[in-house]
Amino acid sequence: MIFGGSNSDQAEVIVIGDEVISGLIHDTNSKYLGERIHELGIGVSRITKIGDDFSTIEECVEKAINRSNWIILTGGLGITHDDITKSVVMKVFGSKLRRDEKVSVMLQKVFKKRNREIPESLESQCEVPDNCQVLYNEIGTAPGLRYEKNGRVLFCLPGVPDEMKYLFEEYIVPELASKSSKTFSQRIIKTTGISESDLWQKVSSLSALEDKVSVASLPSHLGVRIRLSCLAEKKEKGESVLDEVEESLMGYIGQYIYGTNDETLEDKVGQLLVNKSMTLATAESCTGGLIGHRLTQISGSSLYFKEGFLVYSNEAKVSRLGVKQQTLVDYGAVSEQVARSMAEGVCRVTKADIGVSVTGIAGPTGGNDEKPVGLTYIAICDASGTWCKKFIYTHDRIKNKERAAQTALNVLRLRLLGLLR
Amino acid sequence: MIFGGSNSDQAEVIVIGDEVISGLIHDTNSKYLGERIHELGIGVSRITKIGDDFSTIEECVEKAINRSNWIILTGGLGITHDDITKSVVMKVFGSKLRRDEKVSVMLQKVFKKRNREIPESLESQCEVPDNCQVLYNEIGTAPGLRYEKNGRVLFCLPGVPDEMKYLFEEYIVPELASKSSKTFSQRIIKTTGISESDLWQKVSSLSALEDKVSVASLPSHLGVRIRLSCLAEKKEKGESVLDEVEESLMGYIGQYIYGTNDETLEDKVGQLLVNKSMTLATAESCTGGLIGHRLTQISGSSLYFKEGFLVYSNEAKVSRLGVKQQTLVDYGAVSEQVARSMAEGVCRVTKADIGVSVTGIAGPTGGNDEKPVGLTYIAICDASGTWCKKFIYTHDRIKNKERAAQTALNVLRLRLLGLLR
Repeated sequence: MIFGGSNSDQAEVIVIGDEVISGLIHDTNSKYLGERIHELGIGVSRITKIGDDFSTIEECVEKAINRSNWIILTGGLGITHDDITKSVVMKVFGSKLRRDEKVSVMLQKVFKKRNREIPESLESQCEVPDNCQVLYNEIGTAPGLRYEKNGRVLFCLPGVPDEMKYLFEEYIVPELASKSSKTFSQRIIKTTGISESDLWQKVSSLSALEDKVSVASLPSHLGVRIRLSCLAEKKEKGESVLDEVEESLMGYIGQYIYGTNDETLEDKVGQLLVNKSMTLATAESCTGGLIGHRLTQISGSSLYFKEGFLVYSNEAKVSRLGVKQQTLVDYGAVSEQVARSMAEGVCRVTKADIGVSVTGIAGPTGGNDEKPVGLTYIAICDASGTWCKKFIYTHDRIKNKERAAQTALNVLRLRLLGLLR
Repeated sequence: MIFGGSNSDQAEVIVIGDEVISGLIHDTNSKYLGERIHELGIGVSRITKIGDDFSTIEECVEKAINRSNWIILTGGLGITHDDITKSVVMKVFGSKLRRDEKVSVMLQKVFKKRNREIPESLESQCEVPDNCQVLYNEIGTAPGLRYEKNGRVLFCLPGVPDEMKYLFEEYIVPELASKSSKTFSQRIIKTTGISESDLWQKVSSLSALEDKVSVASLPSHLGVRIRLSCLAEKKEKGESVLDEVEESLMGYIGQYIYGTNDETLEDKVGQLLVNKSMTLATAESCTGGLIGHRLTQISGSSLYFKEGFLVYSNEAKVSRLGVKQQTLVDYGAVSEQVARSMAEGVCRVTKADIGVSVTGIAGPTGGNDEKPVGLTYIAICDASGTWCKKFIYTHDRIKNKERAAQTALNVLRLRLLGLLR
């Protein structure tokens, strides 16, 4: 259940491009626009993707302008022969071309930044329809257009995601926000380490709260995201309702919640390490560097992340981390004993305050009856000792690696919070 | 320019779900369907995404069935109150419900695999419309539906990507393939290390080949992908045209091409290492494990990837790889001298046949006038000596890391091919 569907302020999105409908490129624009428009408390009623075909675009634009209050169209504003959006909307709105010097100045600025001459072919971008507002594009070459007819508004934006976003945020968000009758508030509560069914069983008594907010559940192999949303007269009111619901959720499933909205597990682990002035080292086998990669996505991670070892071979486990050859022989590389020895070794060798290790069989090969593909041991070592747990994942190689890295970061989080003994 | 637009076999895709139009989840189904239908030589004329609203779905289905030969609809076939696709198409096609025992048997199988009892709520999935073909879903709980009217066909598939793909491949692909008049062939040529404009300048004389194939250029910060496609009476004919064009491209820009279609740089590097029976070790600073992570995405990488060091701190560079303290003091951690010393050190310490190192400033902090954010040194060490080059990237932290890892894998590829001296 999503709010906004019955709102009189209806928006629709039109995405233009043969590359998009033939699946050659992944269209990220419509997700971005859907999400942002929704956040502004305006319902998105439909998203239409069509090719670079004059009559199809014309038909879609005409229908949309007779149906929706806001139409955001992206794509087809470039200068190649496929780019026909400008011609189509000029026909629909009966426009003529006029020269806009301000576009020319913008182009000069853009190319000065790039340290390049303006190609002659771009001259046509300075010719704009005479009966629309021009949306000046400071980061690219195609200006946007804003048409209005009978109180309905059509925005045409370039398809390049950064340029689309720039013009949308600069010109369209302020206009939509000023017209929206209610304020939409939303919060994503991110959980990991609990299945979707177990999670909803634990919060079953929360259903009473559905009167106050709309709740959506989004499971993936890395965890369940819960989206809370509500419409309110004022932003503060909406936020305080969300605060209340989040607090209730914390009471039921607090230990599984690692963050909200854009927060990541690596953000949270980093914050905890900074707060405790602790340093971290990693010893990865099957994850092959993914844990280190995720930790170092965070600016400032050099404050706490000392170093990592990708001990893919047994030899490396022995010579870098002091895992005993006999332990490998007795228990195999994928075993609790080796995981513990790796975590203890990485702390000893690096003098980090906390160390994490992962050893597993990512697959698709390398498994057997006793040790199946997906078998993974994760260990943590710190001043209070060594913790280790066995996990069995049932995905493909790529997802098994992702899940092992996610779990490793999550147990780090729990250990730093004192919740893992 | 994409083939298929003027083909009489027109398909369209309808994606249903409030979660999709509000941008809460990333719809991957429409890209998948667009790509696969296109590959079958059938044009996709439009992709429409709409919410869980009865009259909107009804209107879209009615328009589609009067316009396109093939309609693939996904979503809304589950058992929650939001799932109304079945009711809508039953209204459009005047269906009644009948019980289908085969669905019941399938459900039992699915839940036996999951080791769980069938929830009572799923009983309604055994009730199917009486005037359509049922598409039995072996991997999930919602059966698909196939309606036909005046020679036009509507398929309804569940929205869960794996189930959608299963039913699409099992039921729809054979039907579409048998009806398609021409065979579509396509090949993605993947390049890296050359800008889009330089690339097209080098292959400018290739434009004569556009009579034979359709050419699309897809640039990103990791390289330019070139898509070649053509329609032919027979698959073999199409493939031989693509072979011919690929060969011409190899003549012009061969060294920048690392693979085709789904091949990745890490695939290619792995193949080269296996062919040469060489082992590899990595020394990563700013990429933080991304190179190791990418190398170990490949099943069998343990054959050649010995180990890696994430030497994030200066201390680690010194103690793990033998970088001299004085070199760090004299030149700084992000310098040619340190990159060389890291690559040489990782070979010496691990006895790998080839070593690669990366040191850089990923940003957004840590840069200055002399050493800006994005400055990166990449070095390779092998039996024939040490190679090093400076790069300056101008993206954000995440993309700078991605680009550094991509370049490191690419220079590894070139070195293994004997093209880097």
